[in-house]
Amino acid sequence: MGELSEGLTQVLIPVAALIGIGFALLQWFLVSKVRVSAVADHNGRDNGHKSSLLGDAELENGVRVPEVTAKCAEIQHAISVGATSFLFTEYRYLTIFMGVFGVIIFLFLGSVKGFSTKSEPCTYNEGNLCKPALANAVFSTIAFLLGAITSVLSGFLGMKIATYANARTTLEARKGIGKAFVIAFRSGAVMGFLLAANGLLVLYVAINLFKLYYGDDWEGLYESITGYGLGGSSMALFGRVGGGIYTKAADVGADLVGKVEQNIPEDDPRNPAVIADNVGDNVGDIAGMGSDLFGSYAESSCAALFVASISSFGLNHDYTAMSYPLIISSMGIVVCMITTLFATDIFEIKYENQIEPSLKRQLLISTVLMTVGIAIVSFFALPSEFTLYNFGGSKVVKNWHLFFCVAIGLWAGLVIGYITEYFTSNAYSPVQDVADSCRTGAATNVIFGLALGYKSVIIPIFAIAVAIYVSFSLAAMYGIAVAALGMLSTIATGLAIDAYGPISDNAGGIAEMAGLRHEIRERTDALDAAGNTTAAIGKGFAIGSAALVSLALFGAYVSRAGIKTVNVMTPKVFIGLIVGAMLPYWFSAMTMKSVGSAALKMVEEVRRQFNTIPGLLEGTGKPDYANCVKISTDASLREMIPPGALVLLAPLIAGTLFGVETLAGVLAGSLVSGVQVAISASNTGGAWDNAKKYIEAGITEHAVSLGPKGSDAHKAAVIGDTVGDPLKDTSGPSLNILIKLMAVESLVFAPFFAAHGGLIFKLF
Amino acid sequence: MGELSEGLTQVLIPVAALIGIGFALLQWFLVSKVRVSAVADHNGRDNGHKSSLLGDAELENGVRVPEVTAKCAEIQHAISVGATSFLFTEYRYLTIFMGVFGVIIFLFLGSVKGFSTKSEPCTYNEGNLCKPALANAVFSTIAFLLGAITSVLSGFLGMKIATYANARTTLEARKGIGKAFVIAFRSGAVMGFLLAANGLLVLYVAINLFKLYYGDDWEGLYESITGYGLGGSSMALFGRVGGGIYTKAADVGADLVGKVEQNIPEDDPRNPAVIADNVGDNVGDIAGMGSDLFGSYAESSCAALFVASISSFGLNHDYTAMSYPLIISSMGIVVCMITTLFATDIFEIKYENQIEPSLKRQLLISTVLMTVGIAIVSFFALPSEFTLYNFGGSKVVKNWHLFFCVAIGLWAGLVIGYITEYFTSNAYSPVQDVADSCRTGAATNVIFGLALGYKSVIIPIFAIAVAIYVSFSLAAMYGIAVAALGMLSTIATGLAIDAYGPISDNAGGIAEMAGLRHEIRERTDALDAAGNTTAAIGKGFAIGSAALVSLALFGAYVSRAGIKTVNVMTPKVFIGLIVGAMLPYWFSAMTMKSVGSAALKMVEEVRRQFNTIPGLLEGTGKPDYANCVKISTDASLREMIPPGALVLLAPLIAGTLFGVETLAGVLAGSLVSGVQVAISASNTGGAWDNAKKYIEAGITEHAVSLGPKGSDAHKAAVIGDTVGDPLKDTSGPSLNILIKLMAVESLVFAPFFAAHGGLIFKLF
Repeated sequence: MGELSEGLTQVLIPVAALIGIGFALLQWFLVSKVRVSAVADHNGRDNGHKSSLLGDAELENGVRVPEVTAKCAEIQHAISVGATSFLFTEYRYLTIFMGVFGVIIFLFLGSVKGFSTKSEPCTYNEGNLCKPALANAVFSTIAFLLGAITSVLSGFLGMKIATYANARTTLEARKGIGKAFVIAFRSGAVMGFLLAANGLLVLYVAINLFKLYYGDDWEGLYESITGYGLGGSSMALFGRVGGGIYTKAADVGADLVGKVEQNIPEDDPRNPAVIADNVGDNVGDIAGMGSDLFGSYAESSCAALFVASISSFGLNHDYTAMSYPLIISSMGIVVCMITTLFATDIFEIKYENQIEPSLKRQLLISTVLMTVGIAIVSFFALPSEFTLYNFGGSKVVKNWHLFFCVAIGLWAGLVIGYITEYFTSNAYSPVQDVADSCRTGAATNVIFGLALGYKSVIIPIFAIAVAIYVSFSLAAMYGIAVAALGMLSTIATGLAIDAYGPISDNAGGIAEMAGLRHEIRERTDALDAAGNTTAAIGKGFAIGSAALVSLALFGAYVSRAGIKTVNVMTPKVFIGLIVGAMLPYWFSAMTMKSVGSAALKMVEEVRRQFNTIPGLLEGTGKPDYANCVKISTDASLREMIPPGALVLLAPLIAGTLFGVETLAGVLAGSLVSGVQVAISASNTGGAWDNAKKYIEAGITEHAVSLGPKGSDAHKAAVIGDTVGDPLKDTSGPSLNILIKLMAVESLVFAPFFAAHGGLIFKLF
Repeated sequence: MGELSEGLTQVLIPVAALIGIGFALLQWFLVSKVRVSAVADHNGRDNGHKSSLLGDAELENGVRVPEVTAKCAEIQHAISVGATSFLFTEYRYLTIFMGVFGVIIFLFLGSVKGFSTKSEPCTYNEGNLCKPALANAVFSTIAFLLGAITSVLSGFLGMKIATYANARTTLEARKGIGKAFVIAFRSGAVMGFLLAANGLLVLYVAINLFKLYYGDDWEGLYESITGYGLGGSSMALFGRVGGGIYTKAADVGADLVGKVEQNIPEDDPRNPAVIADNVGDNVGDIAGMGSDLFGSYAESSCAALFVASISSFGLNHDYTAMSYPLIISSMGIVVCMITTLFATDIFEIKYENQIEPSLKRQLLISTVLMTVGIAIVSFFALPSEFTLYNFGGSKVVKNWHLFFCVAIGLWAGLVIGYITEYFTSNAYSPVQDVADSCRTGAATNVIFGLALGYKSVIIPIFAIAVAIYVSFSLAAMYGIAVAALGMLSTIATGLAIDAYGPISDNAGGIAEMAGLRHEIRERTDALDAAGNTTAAIGKGFAIGSAALVSLALFGAYVSRAGIKTVNVMTPKVFIGLIVGAMLPYWFSAMTMKSVGSAALKMVEEVRRQFNTIPGLLEGTGKPDYANCVKISTDASLREMIPPGALVLLAPLIAGTLFGVETLAGVLAGSLVSGVQVAISASNTGGAWDNAKKYIEAGITEHAVSLGPKGSDAHKAAVIGDTVGDPLKDTSGPSLNILIKLMAVESLVFAPFFAAHGGLIFKLF
């Protein structure tokens, strides 16, 4: 046993979660001090080190200040209303889905033992009686619903905060880049901490409530808890896909007519699709991302808990060791709080080129601190030696082995983050080369961008491979699961820098629409360019952690389905592998086409408005924003169903018709193929976006030679950016959910497939 | 034993090969009747059914006919000289590579038993003595060199024929579309039959010569013969990559300046890159494709022979059954001869829209006839029941099982061909949708094209999966190998319709450069549009067969390396799997970037010539074609090395440092991931090319609404086409070689890896 008593563990976890929530509320309070309805009342809590900025001359910009703030408030309101109404509509559909899928879970799992209410002999804890399969069906369904609700809540809260923060960032940008940065970053932190703390708290409460029924049957308890991960990820899927289609239909449609045809700037208020575009950032990049990372977090915790429950921790009922994954997450919240202070209070941004290094520093600081944190947790919470379940056998593991597993996941995340930054930031040569290729037109830009995306896959894959090898060798599947948790342990910081991106993007949009000075727009553009990079970093984390999580879930599935080996050299497994590797392509085809078609509709509507509304281009007529919002809403709700169905049905069909081995092949294939497609798609898109911004900003001599806005090279860059939109914000990020969700769904349904699966092979 | 005696088998195989060569020569003779230096002297061997065309009015086009033919002859000569000189330069490099790699093979394999010359006890044929490992090293090296030389020869002969046929097709186009089609098709057939027959003959001779030394040691004999496949594929790799970079640097460069900047038509003689572009078609699409398909053929034969040699065929020394793969190929030559007559003599093309159906019919006819052929061969050549080696165990198989294995490979090929046609021909909605998306510009065109490519992967993968499942279940790895052979059994027809494409493309180029009437160019354009589709079909076959071949080689590797199971749930295998799945991306990044950079250089040179050569645009100055040829040559020779090194070193590094299990993972990963990337890349490119041709041809009302040439939609289509160039002609088709070559290389080096591999794991 470690040093930590069960009682103390029971206290520490919820306390950490509550502290995280408190910290999020504090950040929210600090953001709220920026008034959007009147002249900004300066934040009195700054301890002097920012006072040099207090007398900022820009505040004394004459009588027009209240008008500008009122205008910003109005736009913010429109975006917030649009986003809220879309999410409510989406959630209405999702409620129906939750109900139907809940029933399916109950029926499939209940049927495993013919809905019997008799207790069963335990599978691993030999000689003892475990709860009936019917109970597992009921509790898995409840856990699924809990996970789904928490996921939806995570996305919704994130959106609320982002739409609260966007105009505030714009207004602070008048006072200087540093101020604006802090507001955007604090707002991201609100989301990050709320999500991390909330996910932990709900899981903790659920486990303790389930225990009231399960008592000593930990096998059944943690088997049912996996439903929590399934719920989280299935909501995330629709959030990502629906939100992704929404935002990119609007973005692509707005750009194609506005920037390319009418030659008006991005986010110009005359563009009818501009509100839909800004709403999209909040429902896609914020709410979708929130649900996604919450899903990863929930799943990796569930995978770790499930594997632990059938190891010595579980069999000996060592509560503290069993809670190791939750204690790691608790420590992560504390570490991220300290890390946040470095961005908001210790270092200060004075110049535009300090933004990216500052965000990068966040990653580094949190990783270094967390490494110490992991060591502490591993030493106090774990017995110095214990036995882990390893595919039918068992493996003796020491506590410092687990430290290495978690730490390597954490550091692999840092490597992925840094590499992503290198390939998507316009401070380095890859993006500059892509920008340079715009000289010869859009075609070379697209070719170079695709090549960049492919190339950016190499090092992250090696990082993931090393993490897998080390953690797998040291602690089998449990090692993989905690490595994933390690990568996600700094999720609060990761989400903060990620959410910072769309908030800055929105802030820029509001600056343009409210007609703020050119200078302000330049500052928000600088924030946004860094935001594109952090968004790509966030996606890198999401996909890296998804790869580890999926592998952990896959391992748990293999255990639960009672498969001995997943031998590629058997036809059943191999066909699963090759078809599984195809699924990411099928899925991407659907989502790309959906964005394309929805964008075409948006283009027609925007063109119609420019042609029929008198004075629209001159600024005297008013565009019909609502119609564009409706097009995006309808398209995303309609088009999210087929890809969603593909992901949810593929494991059910493979498992039921072809059996557990083929399904294992499908999971492995979609994992190893999907990771590549996802990384290359999101980096390609990020690089194109920043190549365009590089030309627009014209900071270096090279960039000036390509610009200015409207030059042929810039037009070519805009085409690349538009192509990248669905890649980086719809297809790419949805793919991590594809691989995670198929794995967790297989895990939940494993008893059913093991009992009744493989119908086709049984027939012949 | 089947009904066929050993003596008869010994006669039938070489006779079939010689008949194939004779048929190829006959076709060549018929093509040669079209004179390029004077008025065409009409083919007297036609049996009357074409006589209605003899009095063709177009021949009587006044005195200018000799001038035109002379001009065509001149252009043809320039293309032929360019292609020949490039290939010779390339082959000079390849000779060095062959020497070095030959030495590596010898040293690695020789070192397995410390260069001992002592006979060893056989591994499978227990109780007997087999030849020493050193002999295998020597003969593997010889087989490697033989395969390499045959591969180079195949590519070179194909190029010679294509550059002989291009101008003849142009000239025949004056007499009508049907005449031109027949010439282009016959020329393709020359290449198809020469390759198929040559590959068979060399392999047959090599086996019989090797037998002089090996005698009864069939294990050693067929182990060494696998070097033939390695030689074939390693040459194919450089042929594909080098040729692909050559052709696309020229094509992209020519288009970017000519079509987009200077607004002159494709293949305009004023464009300095035009000769390089036409040379490129012959060195990339013809020579590269020839080497590639020869490689597939050699490898699937070797894989089948290797597996058979350690099964009851080999242990009982049943020569006829052992030669089953060769007899299937012999039958294929006969079937393809009959099939060819349907295109050249039985059906006649009168209208442009009959071209594609006629080519499609070739696929169907050859498949139906070959199904009967397979049944005959399986009945006569095989014993009614026999035992196959199956990963340490054995499997009893009946002769009709093998019939099903070969047939399902054959029919899966047909399915892939038809699906590829559906997704890349402008007669169907997918390409028309892509063309339609050009209305809103290049960005939507690229998005729709990428989505189309992803979607086109679905059915081919299911077809491959079904073929794998059936053949694997019926006859283990031998089943897979013969399924691959089944798909390739109609290779002569497949290559004929494939080579038809670049020949037609060149014919169009010559028509434009020689200043032939608009009508003629329209006819060659129609031939070329069908050619784009058949090129895509050819690539579909190449990748489908590559998938099966690689799996068969992979299986053979697993046997030879003595691996029991390739269990995904072990860290060694899993990291191999995920890194292997990444390799196609790494490789594509290199090749795409190479084409991009080379194209940029080409663009600069073409621009320079337009700016500095007086009267070039007006047609009074003469462009410097040679400089552009040099740029393409230098770029392709320099840039083919890194991707080539990646493919060749990856298995060596993985096997030596990480051992046989990790390498097994790498092979499986690159196979299941590479297939998807390859199919989607070549179909996307084909679709973009034909979407552009659809708009240009303006045959339907819809197409007219998008055109004409030079419209905004057309410009967007040109951008898509340019992006697609490296995808469909460089990266995509090189990937099948990547997966095949890594597998066959692993197979050849397997004894070394098994003996000395896994250094890193041994160290820790």
